[in-house]
Amino acid sequence: MKSAVLAAIGDELLSGSRIELNASFMAGEFHAEGWEVRRIEVISDTENEIIDLLSRWIGKTDILIMSGGLGPTHDDKTRYAIAEYLSCGLKADNELYDKILERVKHDPRRYAYTEKCRSTQAMIPELSEAIYNPAGFALGIKFERQGTRVFALPGVPFEYEAMTRQELPEIFRHDSRRTASVIILDVPEMEIAEKIPEVINHKDLHVSILPAFPQVELIIRGEPDLVSWAESLTRSKFSDTVLPKGSRSLPDAVLIEARNRGVKISCAESCTGGLVGAALTDIAGSSDVFNGSAVTYSNESKHEILGVKTETLKKFGAVSIECACEMAEGSRKIYGSDYAVSTTGIAGPDGGSREKPVGTVCFAVAGKNGTRSAVRKLPGSRSEVRTRAVRFALSELWKALKLNS
Amino acid sequence: MKSAVLAAIGDELLSGSRIELNASFMAGEFHAEGWEVRRIEVISDTENEIIDLLSRWIGKTDILIMSGGLGPTHDDKTRYAIAEYLSCGLKADNELYDKILERVKHDPRRYAYTEKCRSTQAMIPELSEAIYNPAGFALGIKFERQGTRVFALPGVPFEYEAMTRQELPEIFRHDSRRTASVIILDVPEMEIAEKIPEVINHKDLHVSILPAFPQVELIIRGEPDLVSWAESLTRSKFSDTVLPKGSRSLPDAVLIEARNRGVKISCAESCTGGLVGAALTDIAGSSDVFNGSAVTYSNESKHEILGVKTETLKKFGAVSIECACEMAEGSRKIYGSDYAVSTTGIAGPDGGSREKPVGTVCFAVAGKNGTRSAVRKLPGSRSEVRTRAVRFALSELWKALKLNS
Repeated sequence: MKSAVLAAIGDELLSGSRIELNASFMAGEFHAEGWEVRRIEVISDTENEIIDLLSRWIGKTDILIMSGGLGPTHDDKTRYAIAEYLSCGLKADNELYDKILERVKHDPRRYAYTEKCRSTQAMIPELSEAIYNPAGFALGIKFERQGTRVFALPGVPFEYEAMTRQELPEIFRHDSRRTASVIILDVPEMEIAEKIPEVINHKDLHVSILPAFPQVELIIRGEPDLVSWAESLTRSKFSDTVLPKGSRSLPDAVLIEARNRGVKISCAESCTGGLVGAALTDIAGSSDVFNGSAVTYSNESKHEILGVKTETLKKFGAVSIECACEMAEGSRKIYGSDYAVSTTGIAGPDGGSREKPVGTVCFAVAGKNGTRSAVRKLPGSRSEVRTRAVRFALSELWKALKLNS
Repeated sequence: MKSAVLAAIGDELLSGSRIELNASFMAGEFHAEGWEVRRIEVISDTENEIIDLLSRWIGKTDILIMSGGLGPTHDDKTRYAIAEYLSCGLKADNELYDKILERVKHDPRRYAYTEKCRSTQAMIPELSEAIYNPAGFALGIKFERQGTRVFALPGVPFEYEAMTRQELPEIFRHDSRRTASVIILDVPEMEIAEKIPEVINHKDLHVSILPAFPQVELIIRGEPDLVSWAESLTRSKFSDTVLPKGSRSLPDAVLIEARNRGVKISCAESCTGGLVGAALTDIAGSSDVFNGSAVTYSNESKHEILGVKTETLKKFGAVSIECACEMAEGSRKIYGSDYAVSTTGIAGPDGGSREKPVGTVCFAVAGKNGTRSAVRKLPGSRSEVRTRAVRFALSELWKALKLNS
């Protein structure tokens, strides 16, 4: 099996100021193509650490991709470290850099700035080749040593993605039949494992179990025929609560179900603050079934915009099943949708009480045949409560769409 | 300087199915306390890789924290690998596990399930100590060898966080004066570096420059007095476009500014789908100034809910300055807010045209003294266009609040 190592360079990653995303993205692409990603490393942006990285992996993996440290400022050390490792000087690739400059010639301020960065961003080690950057201004660097192809790319995610697609087209044309994803709602991970031992323990399959309340995702990898068999068996064992084939996520499943049934959907959000709408609109093409979401954070806006009764707010409070139901019904009315889901809860860290502790979230789905509601006590920090509430809201909406209730 | 190494174990991380978040979180805590995080590694969940990790770092760093691989399923190998490394067998810590069971005794289904997991989740290597898990069900593991304290914790983020806080209280009581963050709007990163060379090049300061359109964040670290001097100097050089001291992010600055001025804010979102509201409500306490956000994805909802004129939609289209202005004004009216910001654009990948290519986003801020608007062509994927649009919308809102316009 061919192998890759992915490294990210930058003290901002080691100090927690920024989350590393490039390696995860690229790991997914390699994996889908049947490559092994042996390791992801985040290292400091010093020349010594970069040289050490090169020494440790060159000759031991087929591809090594580094990201970061190619910008114009003092903490960008990658080009110097590679030159040092290769024992050579630096040269400018002015031809490729001119192609980049060409793109900003209509914008004098940006042109002048980019021209000024030539002395750093156009420089590459003499014993390497430059990589054109179609999305940004720093050139990338590539070379091969002892059977390892090494790529140094910018850390900016869309530049990284554009340049990997350009340089490694063979990794991006996967055989999708080698991977199957099955998303199951409302079943604990160990119950899932116990119901399909022949899949979980199959020596030629690789199964990852990824719980994310209220769903568990199984990722099954292996030869196409075996993956197909395992996927069918798993789907048949959990037929009531499994998201349909072809839906890659909960929001995707909701949109597909709504599309299949020819209905429009909308939301009414309090504690999730817009995250349910954001999850649905994260998917291109959502506009054909998603009308919108009324984020009503204040009691006044719940009343004024969604028509939640003042008595309801007074008697039961904003975090109540009653309020959730009126919110969902109000959303259905103002957006002219067929189904609407609502959230109202206490995300924390403050605002909890004995009866309604932090993490209490009320949900409702209003549909053609009435409104159903649920309340859950969700664990975790403010952000985790909100994330779980989004998934739970979407799973309730999906179930209502599926049952046509 | 004391040092830590942070490792995450799991094929789901190496296959891109899940993004690693624990190490970034913990790296931030170590860094703020003046520790060096030498490396972040993501390794495969095989016993060999885990043993290799232990062999490489024990004796070479003060603390090694591993996360993941402690669950009840077949791909959870951490406890077995540690026992192998320590050349010992496994034992159950039933006393601590009973404490966990106690928490779910009111829920028979969960109790039965947790009891069933005792044979895996209560087991630890004989030569180690168990760590109580206040947020989940798997016990953690700790031991010390050759001056290195080793911790193995669950991969679930809120369990990881709760257990690190419990086991390493000394890391969580930082001297906040050792780190300063300065967020500057609308200035390219190299222009910033050029204006404050005495800060950037100071040998006893560590400065990270983190661009994220339309802002650049500088993180300055070092001795308290020096950090204080550098922060003041930087703030004075960019006084027009720097977010005020104490605001940790753009949404935070918006909320603080609104609070200081005693005004209420709201949004009207199309292409950002709820992300602007989500960014503001990510901050606890936002409800005192944030009334809500009307996510209007369809033309009908822009008209019905926000009062955008049918002629405007017909003549200029939904992605137009005119529509953005009417959306912001509509939001101000229906939420009874003083300031409202709107977004409407083409996030892609489809839907672009010659005049309005993918990435075109129109913004407006409606305030007491009228409405100002802007249009930008944002680069990147659908998700990047949306993220940039959120930041730009918030920066426009902040500027309007600051100028009281």
